Amino acid sequence: MKYQLYYWPHIQGRGEFIRLALEEGAAGYVDVARLPEGEGGGRPAVQRLLEQAGDGRTPFAPPILRAGKLLISQTANILQYLGPRLGLAPKAEAARLWAHQLQLTLADLVVEAHDTHHPVAKSLYYEEQKPEALRRAADFKALRVPKFLGYFERVLASNPGGDRFLVGKSLSYVDLSAFQVIAGLLYAFPRTLAGLQGKHPRLMALRRRVMERPRVAAYLASPRRIPFNDRGIFRHYPELDEA
Amino acid sequence: MKYQLYYWPHIQGRGEFIRLALEEGAAGYVDVARLPEGEGGGRPAVQRLLEQAGDGRTPFAPPILRAGKLLISQTANILQYLGPRLGLAPKAEAARLWAHQLQLTLADLVVEAHDTHHPVAKSLYYEEQKPEALRRAADFKALRVPKFLGYFERVLASNPGGDRFLVGKSLSYVDLSAFQVIAGLLYAFPRTLAGLQGKHPRLMALRRRVMERPRVAAYLASPRRIPFNDRGIFRHYPELDEA
Repeated sequence: MKYQLYYWPHIQGRGEFIRLALEEGAAGYVDVARLPEGEGGGRPAVQRLLEQAGDGRTPFAPPILRAGKLLISQTANILQYLGPRLGLAPKAEAARLWAHQLQLTLADLVVEAHDTHHPVAKSLYYEEQKPEALRRAADFKALRVPKFLGYFERVLASNPGGDRFLVGKSLSYVDLSAFQVIAGLLYAFPRTLAGLQGKHPRLMALRRRVMERPRVAAYLASPRRIPFNDRGIFRHYPELDEA
Repeated sequence: MKYQLYYWPHIQGRGEFIRLALEEGAAGYVDVARLPEGEGGGRPAVQRLLEQAGDGRTPFAPPILRAGKLLISQTANILQYLGPRLGLAPKAEAARLWAHQLQLTLADLVVEAHDTHHPVAKSLYYEEQKPEALRRAADFKALRVPKFLGYFERVLASNPGGDRFLVGKSLSYVDLSAFQVIAGLLYAFPRTLAGLQGKHPRLMALRRRVMERPRVAAYLASPRRIPFNDRGIFRHYPELDEA
């Protein structure tokens, strides 16, 4: 199966959770919107898909995965689909439900990370909602990041399969996504994370292990990995990271 | 199978999406936290579950469903599990992925509806974030509600199974959840919705059809249905609904 990923070409965004799974799973895929517009790529490739009348299954937003005749959207939904096919999900139903729950909880954290710089409206620039962002970021750093990271640290600590993976005894898409979230938080809130790393040794070790995996390392070093920037979900605005 | 639902006993909240599926599916279930504390209910019943060390699969937040040995959390995840068991999900994988995508999109709308009154922090009262709430609600009403409702209206209009259901030719948990979201928006933003209803006839008809189903109607008329109030996700603050 050769997959086609449709996601905005200039940011990691939510597409990155899919890219990481496809890369670690050694899947054949085309990151369609990163092709030149003349070759059917660019933002128009995503927009066309969102505007199609299609068969009544038009996605609401990217990321969108095309797998043969299937068109799948919503990040956690795509990962749930890809996981078993790429050897990145547990086999038993109970473990799959658990993996999906963890993924959805990471997705909740991602929304909250995004909203630190856009607490009022996606339709406005950060600069138009900076006072609100300062307040929201303060709460995010003081309460929400510790709550989420504390939770995932406990999940690792209490995993019957050991603390090297979030689910069971081998790597799953959830570990890849946890790596991405921690990488994003380290980029956006380095000062805050510096104060928290010591409390979450298992989670920080997980991040390192994931980024050192040969396929992930090769991907991160390649031009396929879009750098963090100030248009994505995780943005480094020093004033939001300050005490 | 007799299910146990764990959710805060004083609000509809995210638990309501599960309650509606259990009710329409005629499932045997106990809404545990609505039992008296002396009988193992109340908020402590939920809190105990969140604090248990357990088998390493402790949920992050309610709603939580206990199904035999399984403990499942995250609303969309629970519905994905319950759907096929209660006759409220399509059979084919492609249709199930589509239903789950729609459910996750409804969940995104639910977060945005909540954040109109809590744009800064869950840890603060509404009154402590009112200026921010006014700004966020303005954007929500002007751009986000029309975008989401327009999307679901198109989904109904282009459903090959007809415009009476969001997925296929029969009722699914997604229809129940769509009813709940529209009911919530009508409660929280009556003025805004009055201006939008004419543009979404299929969605408004879906809401009516769902609430007229015998089991749903019986549930809504029973004391099991907690009324909307000013502690839940959908809150009616007139100032947020004004033009």
